[in-house]
Amino acid sequence: MRKHCDDPVRQFIPRAGMTVNELVMEMGGAGAYNGGSLFHAVNIYEKMLTDQDMTKFFGLSGAMVPAGMGGIVSTLIEKKHIDVLTSTGANLTHDLIEAIGCHHYHGQTEYDDLELHKERINRIYDVFLPNEAYEKLEEFIQDVYNDLPEQPITISKLLRVIGEQLDTGILATAAKHDVPIYCPAFQDSVLGLQYWMYSQFHKKTILDAIGDMHDLLNTAFSVKKAGAVLIGGGVPKNFTLQTMLMTENAFTYVIQLTGDRPDLGGLSGATLDEAKSWGKIDEDGIGVTVYGDATITLPILTAATLERVERK
Amino acid sequence: MRKHCDDPVRQFIPRAGMTVNELVMEMGGAGAYNGGSLFHAVNIYEKMLTDQDMTKFFGLSGAMVPAGMGGIVSTLIEKKHIDVLTSTGANLTHDLIEAIGCHHYHGQTEYDDLELHKERINRIYDVFLPNEAYEKLEEFIQDVYNDLPEQPITISKLLRVIGEQLDTGILATAAKHDVPIYCPAFQDSVLGLQYWMYSQFHKKTILDAIGDMHDLLNTAFSVKKAGAVLIGGGVPKNFTLQTMLMTENAFTYVIQLTGDRPDLGGLSGATLDEAKSWGKIDEDGIGVTVYGDATITLPILTAATLERVERK
Amino acid sequence: MRKHCDDPVRQFIPRAGMTVNELVMEMGGAGAYNGGSLFHAVNIYEKMLTDQDMTKFFGLSGAMVPAGMGGIVSTLIEKKHIDVLTSTGANLTHDLIEAIGCHHYHGQTEYDDLELHKERINRIYDVFLPNEAYEKLEEFIQDVYNDLPEQPITISKLLRVIGEQLDTGILATAAKHDVPIYCPAFQDSVLGLQYWMYSQFHKKTILDAIGDMHDLLNTAFSVKKAGAVLIGGGVPKNFTLQTMLMTENAFTYVIQLTGDRPDLGGLSGATLDEAKSWGKIDEDGIGVTVYGDATITLPILTAATLERVERK
Amino acid sequence: MRKHCDDPVRQFIPRAGMTVNELVMEMGGAGAYNGGSLFHAVNIYEKMLTDQDMTKFFGLSGAMVPAGMGGIVSTLIEKKHIDVLTSTGANLTHDLIEAIGCHHYHGQTEYDDLELHKERINRIYDVFLPNEAYEKLEEFIQDVYNDLPEQPITISKLLRVIGEQLDTGILATAAKHDVPIYCPAFQDSVLGLQYWMYSQFHKKTILDAIGDMHDLLNTAFSVKKAGAVLIGGGVPKNFTLQTMLMTENAFTYVIQLTGDRPDLGGLSGATLDEAKSWGKIDEDGIGVTVYGDATITLPILTAATLERVERK
Repeated sequence: MRKHCDDPVRQFIPRAGMTVNELVMEMGGAGAYNGGSLFHAVNIYEKMLTDQDMTKFFGLSGAMVPAGMGGIVSTLIEKKHIDVLTSTGANLTHDLIEAIGCHHYHGQTEYDDLELHKERINRIYDVFLPNEAYEKLEEFIQDVYNDLPEQPITISKLLRVIGEQLDTGILATAAKHDVPIYCPAFQDSVLGLQYWMYSQFHKKTILDAIGDMHDLLNTAFSVKKAGAVLIGGGVPKNFTLQTMLMTENAFTYVIQLTGDRPDLGGLSGATLDEAKSWGKIDEDGIGVTVYGDATITLPILTAATLERVERK
Repeated sequence: MRKHCDDPVRQFIPRAGMTVNELVMEMGGAGAYNGGSLFHAVNIYEKMLTDQDMTKFFGLSGAMVPAGMGGIVSTLIEKKHIDVLTSTGANLTHDLIEAIGCHHYHGQTEYDDLELHKERINRIYDVFLPNEAYEKLEEFIQDVYNDLPEQPITISKLLRVIGEQLDTGILATAAKHDVPIYCPAFQDSVLGLQYWMYSQFHKKTILDAIGDMHDLLNTAFSVKKAGAVLIGGGVPKNFTLQTMLMTENAFTYVIQLTGDRPDLGGLSGATLDEAKSWGKIDEDGIGVTVYGDATITLPILTAATLERVERK
Repeated sequence: MRKHCDDPVRQFIPRAGMTVNELVMEMGGAGAYNGGSLFHAVNIYEKMLTDQDMTKFFGLSGAMVPAGMGGIVSTLIEKKHIDVLTSTGANLTHDLIEAIGCHHYHGQTEYDDLELHKERINRIYDVFLPNEAYEKLEEFIQDVYNDLPEQPITISKLLRVIGEQLDTGILATAAKHDVPIYCPAFQDSVLGLQYWMYSQFHKKTILDAIGDMHDLLNTAFSVKKAGAVLIGGGVPKNFTLQTMLMTENAFTYVIQLTGDRPDLGGLSGATLDEAKSWGKIDEDGIGVTVYGDATITLPILTAATLERVERK
Repeated sequence: MRKHCDDPVRQFIPRAGMTVNELVMEMGGAGAYNGGSLFHAVNIYEKMLTDQDMTKFFGLSGAMVPAGMGGIVSTLIEKKHIDVLTSTGANLTHDLIEAIGCHHYHGQTEYDDLELHKERINRIYDVFLPNEAYEKLEEFIQDVYNDLPEQPITISKLLRVIGEQLDTGILATAAKHDVPIYCPAFQDSVLGLQYWMYSQFHKKTILDAIGDMHDLLNTAFSVKKAGAVLIGGGVPKNFTLQTMLMTENAFTYVIQLTGDRPDLGGLSGATLDEAKSWGKIDEDGIGVTVYGDATITLPILTAATLERVERK
């Protein structure tokens, strides 16, 4: 047998009734391109979830909650598989919209956008969101903001306050399980715009942009081992990874599910090898990138890994 | 309830032990972006496979056999879910390589390509293929070519002759089940190069480029209903779809799994709406495109649909 | 002549010595796919830059300064073609690195990242950045931070303070020309990490996350007309566009140069039609997206438009 | 100065009236991501076009002629910068459509495709093509086919016969300058469908699928040096590169302009490094891939290179 050629590709045989992990195992036998990477990602995620010394970070970018992926994040928090969550403001806004009883709707891409605007429906690719959701959100959130004490508050503390008033969703579940949510670009969301509105007309509670970094850096300094799952790129990817730059620590495992591409130079599509040059991932660390739409890869990653770790 | 907003997005809840179709059903509840499209694709594929009047076309582009996806195609042929197959020459070359006992191997992308060249290993992204496979292929195929009669032969007839001498794989299974394989760019493959070599030194059996179109067009003219699954774009996509241009018929269902993008104008990434302007898809026909890596989406599409149609 | 078919495609003829605008005009004659979009983008940018009533927003995402695109932004500010800049923290960090005399270097993608890490070189795709740049940055920025007064400061005010101490680059030019720079995710950058370090050991100047929104919203409320150029997506795209949500105003012109794709649902790749459903772009407004690498499209967009507006 | 870090990135400064090569030179100073690759591509193309010993191959995939890129190919043939052309059948069909006086038209992507179908307009992304073009093509091409002698003919010979009856475009210019056009998947085009129609009702001139390989392989065996420009992937890329597999020769220079991505495993997006493992590119050969839309990159590549080689 020739060197480098000892692990043959096995042709995938689809079977009626396979479980998701059986699908992934068969993908691993085939084992090429992003199907192969997804198999490796499940292997690493299983290690992350079964290692008692692992602090588990999760980065959430992209319009994932409108696409029904928020349920996965809540489930992972509930099962204690996320210790630190970093999110865009938009995902938290959409999480709140659902938590207060509004909905996103299955729509379509071809509908005329000016027509939608007249009907007061906002479009996110093929998801429709009636504008009245924002009116209900305003009512809810202004009440919350009005009850804030007059001293400076960090973004994660504010998100905790919001979550404590909710029953379902990411914000609620994180608050209940004491998982911090970081959202460095809070202003860049409807929650942020509402905060500006509130601060226009009421007493001023300063939102402290840097305050959260103390707790986050403390976590970074004190981890025994660290692993991260990154959905998309954006601020959550960079913020999760940059934390380690200030410490002697680095991530042992990183899984990235992204649709971006590396050759454009942006961090969102950057390979995790690149992260090793920066020292964000350990010399012996493992990074796996699965390129593709997270509405397909995230359900597989999580269902397959839960199948492995819960059936042991 | 506001018009256009009556089908709410349901947050995906991952569960240990879900079957692939359960995963897809849950993706349908979330129902957005490519995860939503994959759910629709399974719905359409179920209809295609359970309609007695449906002639089922399948187009195979991309380096799918080296990635272990050939097993899916063989399985579908065996289960009578493919009536007409159009393939690149490369996929058939790689199918033959496996059928004569050679293998593709799990490799990696980072290895030095000049080093690989010295070791006589060919790389297909993260798959390695030792060059000796081509030597064994040459031995096998030259014997086949030498036995050809001296009259013109069509490409699909030649592929049938090859398949009849094999036990496993796409060529073998198609021959056994009498499924025609079309390969318009046969010359554009190692099978084609070998044919040139053979024709250099031996009697000349002319390979007839147009001959196959008679049978294929006959099929196109006589179908009651037609459906197609297209993996990637390239020649197999166009050749499958263009057939209908000469007839009054058109496809009722088309599913495309592709990683290309529409804005580059090429057919490989073109939406199936575009195909309606050409009359390739019926006015009432349905086309669903799932963007992403077929090493992930094809296993799901087939496993979920088989689960539905075999468990009924 | 058939309806909808009155403007024929003209085949592109390349000529030695064409200027960039001549190239773009010829691209407009060809006029298809992203080449056609780039021609439309230049037409719109020309209108934006020659309309006295236009307030010009600019959003800067992606690792653009390391790729030499920062010079374009500085040039545009200098020529008064940017009134409001929103940037990622990373681009400003890299701008500062060059402004204090350090450099990014032409590197390569294939080099071993662990080896780079040992040599203390950080990689951004094919750009290398020696770690000592960060040491010099630390020295410089800690001095700046130490001189801050002890009252809360907004992010744009802080960036102004930094820019006033520099001679070249985006921060310097914006300070000199009194152009505000917004950076909602300031914490998500080395500038932010340095701020945390400073605040660990020194008196506390609170960085006010919401403060900038007052000025920005004031601008949004008071514009006669608004136009935007968005490089990449991320926070700068959303923050630029969301501003209008709170007002009766909307953008008249938006140009987006992005490498992302719409079908993943994320805002970074979302079409500008989608923005119309939200009311971010005017009913009669025009949005043009050019898909591709901004290291190619941004130089063409700006060189061609300057050729038009400066030669009039 | 640190090892590996001796060539600093220079910030791009856009200037009114820059020529295309000045733009590319400035892009080279910035020199990162695909802008940097485009600069390298121009450097290599200049070498290819000024080396007397170079045999110049050109591969043409994607719907390039409908997008006005055919004029570039004709111009290059006329200037003796293409020695061997490999094309999809579609590009040649669209070239013929223009050569017989029909046109493609600037259209739009949003128009309803069923409406277009009723108006007998075919859509290629944002290009419209009235169906009557195909009627005129049928009239023209059936005459040509009817005059064919009754012996087997190769595809390139047939394309030469067609080109000799035309005045403008790729087919005409190639015939005039004696440049062979290879089109392995001829059947996969309207020209092929028309050939089938002709062969249905008339005497049979067999189209020889393999015949062209003799001439092409002869060229491959006899080149002193070989260079290739590949637009898109598909059959033209593989057919151009595979030729060298049978010889001791290999390509010295290969430039690929493609919108595909490598991680899907398909040849169309495969890096040119991968081609080195196969021996298609010389050990010392140079391959440059520019990812992006060829309607932008091909005009720049050719205009900049012509500026360099014609102004010497």
